[in-house]
Amino acid sequence: MKVAKFGGSSMATAAQLQKVASIIKDDPSRKIIVVSAPGKRFADDVKTTDLLIQLGESYINGEHYEEIYGKVLSRFREIIEELLLNTALLEDIENTLKDVLSKDISSIAKLDALKSIGEDSSAKILSAYLQAIGFEASYVNPKDAGIIVSNNPGNAQILDSSFTKIYALREKVGILVIPGFFGYTEDGELMTFSRGGSDITGSIVAAGVEATLYENFTDVDSVYAVNPTIVSNPKEIKTLTYKEMRELSYAGFSVFHDEALIPAFKKQIPVCIKNTNKPHLPGTNIVAEKKPEEKCVVGIASDTGFSSLYVSKYLMNREIGFGRKLLNILEDEGISFEHAPSGIDDLSVIIRDSKLSKAKEKNITKRIYEELHPDTVILHRDLAMIMVVGEGLMNTIGVAQKATTAIANANVNIEMINQGSSEVSMMFGIQAADLNRAVESLYHVFFD
Amino acid sequence: MKVAKFGGSSMATAAQLQKVASIIKDDPSRKIIVVSAPGKRFADDVKTTDLLIQLGESYINGEHYEEIYGKVLSRFREIIEELLLNTALLEDIENTLKDVLSKDISSIAKLDALKSIGEDSSAKILSAYLQAIGFEASYVNPKDAGIIVSNNPGNAQILDSSFTKIYALREKVGILVIPGFFGYTEDGELMTFSRGGSDITGSIVAAGVEATLYENFTDVDSVYAVNPTIVSNPKEIKTLTYKEMRELSYAGFSVFHDEALIPAFKKQIPVCIKNTNKPHLPGTNIVAEKKPEEKCVVGIASDTGFSSLYVSKYLMNREIGFGRKLLNILEDEGISFEHAPSGIDDLSVIIRDSKLSKAKEKNITKRIYEELHPDTVILHRDLAMIMVVGEGLMNTIGVAQKATTAIANANVNIEMINQGSSEVSMMFGIQAADLNRAVESLYHVFFD
Repeated sequence: MKVAKFGGSSMATAAQLQKVASIIKDDPSRKIIVVSAPGKRFADDVKTTDLLIQLGESYINGEHYEEIYGKVLSRFREIIEELLLNTALLEDIENTLKDVLSKDISSIAKLDALKSIGEDSSAKILSAYLQAIGFEASYVNPKDAGIIVSNNPGNAQILDSSFTKIYALREKVGILVIPGFFGYTEDGELMTFSRGGSDITGSIVAAGVEATLYENFTDVDSVYAVNPTIVSNPKEIKTLTYKEMRELSYAGFSVFHDEALIPAFKKQIPVCIKNTNKPHLPGTNIVAEKKPEEKCVVGIASDTGFSSLYVSKYLMNREIGFGRKLLNILEDEGISFEHAPSGIDDLSVIIRDSKLSKAKEKNITKRIYEELHPDTVILHRDLAMIMVVGEGLMNTIGVAQKATTAIANANVNIEMINQGSSEVSMMFGIQAADLNRAVESLYHVFFD
Repeated sequence: MKVAKFGGSSMATAAQLQKVASIIKDDPSRKIIVVSAPGKRFADDVKTTDLLIQLGESYINGEHYEEIYGKVLSRFREIIEELLLNTALLEDIENTLKDVLSKDISSIAKLDALKSIGEDSSAKILSAYLQAIGFEASYVNPKDAGIIVSNNPGNAQILDSSFTKIYALREKVGILVIPGFFGYTEDGELMTFSRGGSDITGSIVAAGVEATLYENFTDVDSVYAVNPTIVSNPKEIKTLTYKEMRELSYAGFSVFHDEALIPAFKKQIPVCIKNTNKPHLPGTNIVAEKKPEEKCVVGIASDTGFSSLYVSKYLMNREIGFGRKLLNILEDEGISFEHAPSGIDDLSVIIRDSKLSKAKEKNITKRIYEELHPDTVILHRDLAMIMVVGEGLMNTIGVAQKATTAIANANVNIEMINQGSSEVSMMFGIQAADLNRAVESLYHVFFD
């Protein structure tokens, strides 16, 4: 039994839904389908979920919301009419929408319930269409599917008790279409996951029913070895391990929702990322383990927006607890950090720029000088991190040489190297302005 | 005013003492002389300090000590007779020795007092010899010099109150000869520094009198760019900064006692390491700052005896406090660590092998599994660390490339790279068995 999840672009138009139906038809083991809300039909289009958020905000603020209300409904009407489905379905969706708007619940609960309507309607439409073309198919509400979550609106977490309930879905007959992105608390309150959360639902359901495969249909052919906006036509990645995917998505690979990998990983369900528009392509497989001969550099991820806080003090390594005290100051100021590599008399703390306002920077620097009496405190902003990712990287002679040569050839200074702490990646810190040059050069060295 | 310290080999024989006197004569600004105990006269010889320790242990254990007692005295007799000094000096030394042995004090105090007799006698002999050849010279006991220390036998620490007292030595006339290696507590108890502590006395006195230079006379021409047992005839280092010296001495450079640099550093007294046997050579200067054009790789230090404790857990970086809990387990077990580089879902802790017995390893691994539920815990023993050291290293494009290329050319796998946390060094972890090959290759890349 496979679980297939279809993303926003796969649900955006009637024509896309026909492709989805055809994919389902192609493989009878595709028994459970999880869907997103209709996404963009063209580059400048607005996603249904964004329309629903706008609608909710206008309504809550007492502004005119009729125009956006109309836009939301027209997205669903367009699909329903083009697929020649019963218009009672549109009435059903409109009733749900009206119900949520008029219901006497908190603004937060209203917004969460509105956001869920995109996925919920998608699931109803796909299920009706599958029936119309002769499938035995049914819409299954997340509550009936057993998706029980914590009470965190907009950031719900799955509860362990869900999985045995979800396992019972295996017994149901026909194709089950489940809306992604939301679940219900034990008290029956609707809660959404974080944005992009349909991937999470798919992964939860795949883990729950112990699927042989979790297929994630998107609008890209595969995961690429490097960001295609930096290197054109990059190599496709055929197979990735969960670990490799984690490291890649940490530094800018956004194909697959990071949190979504967790349930699949825990039950070791393989994941396949495919393109709805080219379902014959193999896509990218995410698996638990690779054969030794497949172990090499699989990708180069990169992200900007890092800062490095450098602190040096002569004889630091004789001062017990220096590092701990420094991290305590950061914790006091509510700043989480990514890494804290240390030398003998030096310590660097890598922080996401977004977490470090100018005011916090000033405060922290002041406290470090006053409380720790260092020789130097320097904050470097605008750093970029590059991750060279691959299983077996650590046991291959010359990988560091290849990488540092590529960066030097691009005439880029390396501010930081962190290698060996991770089994599957090597991390380089450079100036953000040098990023594209360094990544291109690395790509060519490892993939040409 | 300069402070000159002469090490054990410079005080080992009458001939060596004559060289010392000649060095003192050469530069009238060499006003304060600090001396070690007579060291080895030939490769298989025993240092006086070791004889004194044997003597003390035999005496305390109630064993026959007469033979060693005789050996100690004969070391001093030989020098005194060859220098044609008054034999009353030998009687004075023998009386001191007898006094200490028979005195009703603790074994620890007795051992410390015995150990100090090597330096103390050296100072008396040199002072007498300088007088005999026409200098105005005097022996100054550390108590009179103002060297006040904490009550830690064998590991005394200088007290801040000492420095103003030591400053008063500037007013004394003639050459002052001070025994190294020991001081007195405020209660007048004799305490030795850690082994090799004459370097510490020299640095304390140089800082106290605010010397223009602290000269450290040894039996090597200079500090070398690499361990001469790995690379023959290595390049001599002309100038080092305190920071560079710290990083080099951390990983195996033992020319200069690490602790000894502290007082000189605090008062920014330049240090010069010279050879008593070739005083015309420039030696190695240790200074606070270098000119930008002098900034480059100055040395390659290396040391074996490291372990790496690798812990991985899928989604570690979402688990707040994982690293802290791991370090707490180590702290509980009394294990200090050198570095703790972290990846996203991985953490490595670098520990000195000597601190991690098999029993402790077992205990720690068990606790990590039980308390932190990781995916993997692996201890790699027999690691070596290589430090490529140099001011300005971080701002030079291609240094990492050069280093990693050198290591790859030696067919050595890099287990760990830590770069960027220190301003002046780059650290590589490799298998200890590969050490010599990697260091040779690095040396040739940076110094040929």
